[in-house]
Amino acid sequence: MIKPFVACLLAATAAQGLAQSAPPAPPVVVPQQIAALRDDALANDSYAWDITEGLTTEVGQRLAGTEAEARARDWGVRRLTAMGFSNVRVETFALPVWTRGAESAEIVAPFPQKLAVTALGNSASTGPQGITGQIVAFDSVDALKAAPDSAVRGKIVFVDHRMAPTQDGSSYGPGGTPRRVGPTVASQKGAIGIIVRSAGTDHHRNPHAGVQTFGEGAQPIPAGAISIPDAEQLARILKRGQPVSLRLTLVSQRRPDGQSGNVIAEVPGRDPSLPPVLVGGHLDSWDLGTGAIDDASGVAIAAAAAKRIMDAGRPLRTIRVVWFGSEEVGLFGGQYYRTRHGKQPHWAMLESDFGADRIWRVNSKLGEARRDDARLIGAALAPLGIVTGSFEEAEGSDIGPMLEDGQPGVGLSQDGTRYFDYHHTPDDTLDKVDPAQLRQNVAAWTATLVILAGPIEPAARPRSRRR
Amino acid sequence: MIKPFVACLLAATAAQGLAQSAPPAPPVVVPQQIAALRDDALANDSYAWDITEGLTTEVGQRLAGTEAEARARDWGVRRLTAMGFSNVRVETFALPVWTRGAESAEIVAPFPQKLAVTALGNSASTGPQGITGQIVAFDSVDALKAAPDSAVRGKIVFVDHRMAPTQDGSSYGPGGTPRRVGPTVASQKGAIGIIVRSAGTDHHRNPHAGVQTFGEGAQPIPAGAISIPDAEQLARILKRGQPVSLRLTLVSQRRPDGQSGNVIAEVPGRDPSLPPVLVGGHLDSWDLGTGAIDDASGVAIAAAAAKRIMDAGRPLRTIRVVWFGSEEVGLFGGQYYRTRHGKQPHWAMLESDFGADRIWRVNSKLGEARRDDARLIGAALAPLGIVTGSFEEAEGSDIGPMLEDGQPGVGLSQDGTRYFDYHHTPDDTLDKVDPAQLRQNVAAWTATLVILAGPIEPAARPRSRRR
Repeated sequence: MIKPFVACLLAATAAQGLAQSAPPAPPVVVPQQIAALRDDALANDSYAWDITEGLTTEVGQRLAGTEAEARARDWGVRRLTAMGFSNVRVETFALPVWTRGAESAEIVAPFPQKLAVTALGNSASTGPQGITGQIVAFDSVDALKAAPDSAVRGKIVFVDHRMAPTQDGSSYGPGGTPRRVGPTVASQKGAIGIIVRSAGTDHHRNPHAGVQTFGEGAQPIPAGAISIPDAEQLARILKRGQPVSLRLTLVSQRRPDGQSGNVIAEVPGRDPSLPPVLVGGHLDSWDLGTGAIDDASGVAIAAAAAKRIMDAGRPLRTIRVVWFGSEEVGLFGGQYYRTRHGKQPHWAMLESDFGADRIWRVNSKLGEARRDDARLIGAALAPLGIVTGSFEEAEGSDIGPMLEDGQPGVGLSQDGTRYFDYHHTPDDTLDKVDPAQLRQNVAAWTATLVILAGPIEPAARPRSRRR
Repeated sequence: MIKPFVACLLAATAAQGLAQSAPPAPPVVVPQQIAALRDDALANDSYAWDITEGLTTEVGQRLAGTEAEARARDWGVRRLTAMGFSNVRVETFALPVWTRGAESAEIVAPFPQKLAVTALGNSASTGPQGITGQIVAFDSVDALKAAPDSAVRGKIVFVDHRMAPTQDGSSYGPGGTPRRVGPTVASQKGAIGIIVRSAGTDHHRNPHAGVQTFGEGAQPIPAGAISIPDAEQLARILKRGQPVSLRLTLVSQRRPDGQSGNVIAEVPGRDPSLPPVLVGGHLDSWDLGTGAIDDASGVAIAAAAAKRIMDAGRPLRTIRVVWFGSEEVGLFGGQYYRTRHGKQPHWAMLESDFGADRIWRVNSKLGEARRDDARLIGAALAPLGIVTGSFEEAEGSDIGPMLEDGQPGVGLSQDGTRYFDYHHTPDDTLDKVDPAQLRQNVAAWTATLVILAGPIEPAARPRSRRR
């Protein structure tokens, strides 16, 4: 995922207000079909694990617009077809592609040593010979903005802004600012390059990659992130008070003519005239790890829940599984889906893109008229340890613009406490996915899907009726 | 540290036997001077932190025989001199030097992707173009040994032996076997290269470096370690049953004419005719991290305890601080000290080389005649949560051969539960050192040193007497 979670904070505040002032809600009884499907997923789901394991093992990293992402689409089509989904297809789109090359950083003086660095998306290339410059350090982007250009010109900026873990991921908003905005500001002030402290919460020598986009009038400059231990090391060295000189090598490439695509599959509803329920995640990943938590587990959770509905029978409404392409580099897949299908009414949109740790909260934005459905979702999820948050908010990076357009949605919030230990690093690998928590996710999604797309009729009956 | 801790297991067994059969020991009263110095160190020591922080920040990595290790010696001489030690000197020695170059590994087929790899010490170079071969996998070195040469010849061996954390580090004996022995066995069977699962207990994409030495008749081949998540990924890929082809690039260099040295400093005893107490650690580190736990904290603990004695007055016996050079690549510093000083009687030898987590056990090998001293050490350390283990064992990599020669010694065993999460990886950095646990180490060392080198007389009196 790439979007800040400021929305979550607003949602939490709204929910709190509601709890204090709203009249008590009427009791909600969860129908047996919903509870049974939920509990079966919690105990037995293996679909989500198999997809997560398969995609990360047989494809690995799948950077947006690259041949690896194309292999991931092929893999997705094969897998979703084998699982029995209908209308499996790829909707392709074009995009510019940025790829990483050799990268290194080393302090030349006063204390020569290497730092662990990775290029940020859309970084300019230093060329293989690298650049060398004096470090000028700031605690925040605001401090960088406030500095006179003369203090920055010709130097390499270091922004040392810190980020702490939060359950709802809200610290990623401010925590990611140096990465998102720092390169543009540094460029505008004449810096020859920038390194930021990684937007992360771990203490490992793995820098956190991520996209940044140079704003209007900002000439692209080399832009990297150093790992958190390296940022602390550099801060200690700077504290000694001597000028610090850094050699930075970030060799990257850009080409305008890449191709990506959304992989789409469906569970046909009994009434095809009704608006579908969209469930999704994003298929692409950053290129350092295998994208297990970002976002193989997300596409897996969405598809596993849909498959469990399919196994149980036929839902009233069509469930549309969308594995978005090229999310990490600028929400391209979501934009393309919006352009092509965004005006079509959807009954709800849901996206899983915050790892695979347990869901702790459900938000929804289904409208006043469907408040009973929203309450039923809350009641069905409560036994999984999930609290009901807002009725006015949903979330998701690719679906975000469509939610803002007015599409209804449900947001199943995963616990993000350790998400930013691994996010966009080489450490985003399968061993970070806890199978038990992954099953809890599938259970919550399955129960939610039964409510949104159901009721479900046993497959044998509708099929025999149709023959 | 590089040595297996099998000795610890034997010691634990011996201690257990003793507890069951020996007559109850007489009560031991800890003199006030010892308790006061111990408690002051526990509450207030900053010497050890300052040395650990300074060495890792101002020098960083310091690979054996390199210019970086030479800078570390210069740093050590300056720091120990500034702290007031006497007879500060470097005793230099020659050694062959192995250095790391570019390194990468990627699966070519069936599922193309990169693996995180690092070369093992003394690895042959693949040259910049790398080598490509089919993987042949084994669960253990024994399984590799048992395989017919025809199954290995012309291939790249993968040894996937696992290692679990242990408090006493004993799992590093068997856990490190693939790294130590695997390359020799693979070479003897005609493999073109070998990669081993890292000897570690973490789940991060940081491979564990470490030395290996090709045995008699084994032609050097490229030898690397892959990170634990990568080993698990490779195992999953192999499980699919298709032939797996790997491209391995490990560019490394060897030169015969390196120089290293031991940095030595002393707290002169009141009676210079008495055998000295040697306290030490090793100054060199692997080149991936900054060697904070291996072994900046070790040299820091030893020097801090000696400095605290110096601050309190003059000990009866000389305390000799030795920061050994080039331990990691084959105990060269310890060997050189042994050749030059090993025949001189020492009152005791102690080495800190197992991180900076709390000391949980004290072993000693001071001889029957000094059993009271050994018991007093146990009694003085008990309030720090330290149990008394064996009276027949001590430990330490550089001092190990001299202990075997018959020199007396004390072994203060650190808790190794998380040590092999970081050992020999890029993650061995300052943030892994817990200042509170570091102080507990200094407290234990200080109390032990008072007993071994004391009693201490206030500095004012002896100095004025001498004038």
